[in-house]
Amino acid sequence: MPRKRIAIDMDEVMAQVVPKFLRLYEDTFGVKPETSDYHGKKLYQLPGSKQLREALFHKGFFRDLPVMPDSQEVIRELMEEYDIFIVTAAMEFRNSFEDKFDWLREHFDFIPWKNIIFCGDKSIIDADYMIDDHAFNLETFKGKGLLFTATHNVDENRFERVNGWLEVRAFFEKERAEASE
Amino acid sequence: MPRKRIAIDMDEVMAQVVPKFLRLYEDTFGVKPETSDYHGKKLYQLPGSKQLREALFHKGFFRDLPVMPDSQEVIRELMEEYDIFIVTAAMEFRNSFEDKFDWLREHFDFIPWKNIIFCGDKSIIDADYMIDDHAFNLETFKGKGLLFTATHNVDENRFERVNGWLEVRAFFEKERAEASE
Repeated sequence: MPRKRIAIDMDEVMAQVVPKFLRLYEDTFGVKPETSDYHGKKLYQLPGSKQLREALFHKGFFRDLPVMPDSQEVIRELMEEYDIFIVTAAMEFRNSFEDKFDWLREHFDFIPWKNIIFCGDKSIIDADYMIDDHAFNLETFKGKGLLFTATHNVDENRFERVNGWLEVRAFFEKERAEASE
Repeated sequence: MPRKRIAIDMDEVMAQVVPKFLRLYEDTFGVKPETSDYHGKKLYQLPGSKQLREALFHKGFFRDLPVMPDSQEVIRELMEEYDIFIVTAAMEFRNSFEDKFDWLREHFDFIPWKNIIFCGDKSIIDADYMIDDHAFNLETFKGKGLLFTATHNVDENRFERVNGWLEVRAFFEKERAEASE
């Protein structure tokens, strides 16, 4: 049987973006927002803070993001059983390409370049599973979508949710157990 | 009915790569190869010329490639009837990302960024048609593959062949005529 394929998003799934926006917010407005302030939102969706989104277009923004806890270990394990593809909607951000590629080479050098995809509309992706923090990417996906919890998606309830990589690991252990029954 | 999707390769389909390698070959070896010399091959696959492939890794290589004749006009027409996705195996060449993106913005600014994909292994692509000069990309494609003629693929005969963009136009006119019968 061919190995199943998992498409994994980068931002807010493998890479933490919120800490950087929190710092930007504080630097710009002089106050640090509480988690409850941006419940169900991205930080640049708060009133008057649209300008913060500009940072995504700057060289360097994506280069030094912290790695999501447990992602390296769990993805390495999953690669033993699945074909892993990194699928990131980089195309809006021309200046992110090299940063994202270099970040992956630094933190996930065990993922071959053949399995990395920079795209725009993820509906072009053919895989069995997709792990993503954006419901709109899972909406058009034909396989099984897993919503990776992020502050902006906490009110979304149409997809199976994973709260971090240990839950991703548990999900796939369960999938394999059920498949072999 | 949803619009059908066409995945289109860049190098040797939208962008001409051979003229640059011919010039490189001549600059390196002092002789200009005849077309018959590289029949069924890439220029860097000729004996002793493997080193020429290094050029693909240099900044700038993909930025100034000539546009394939008729590609702009035909792709613009196809966009009226189909969803067009540009799918290029850029991931081996980290330094090509910005060049390829800027080249597309210069010559194909009518193609939205959402419809551009930089990848490695094209088997991840879900589309109805794929136009590519590499048989190995069509081998794993689930839709209908069209082999775009290039010097290196002239002996390949497993796929429907298109000799240039006017034949691509004719192929899709025929497809639509047959579909509406």
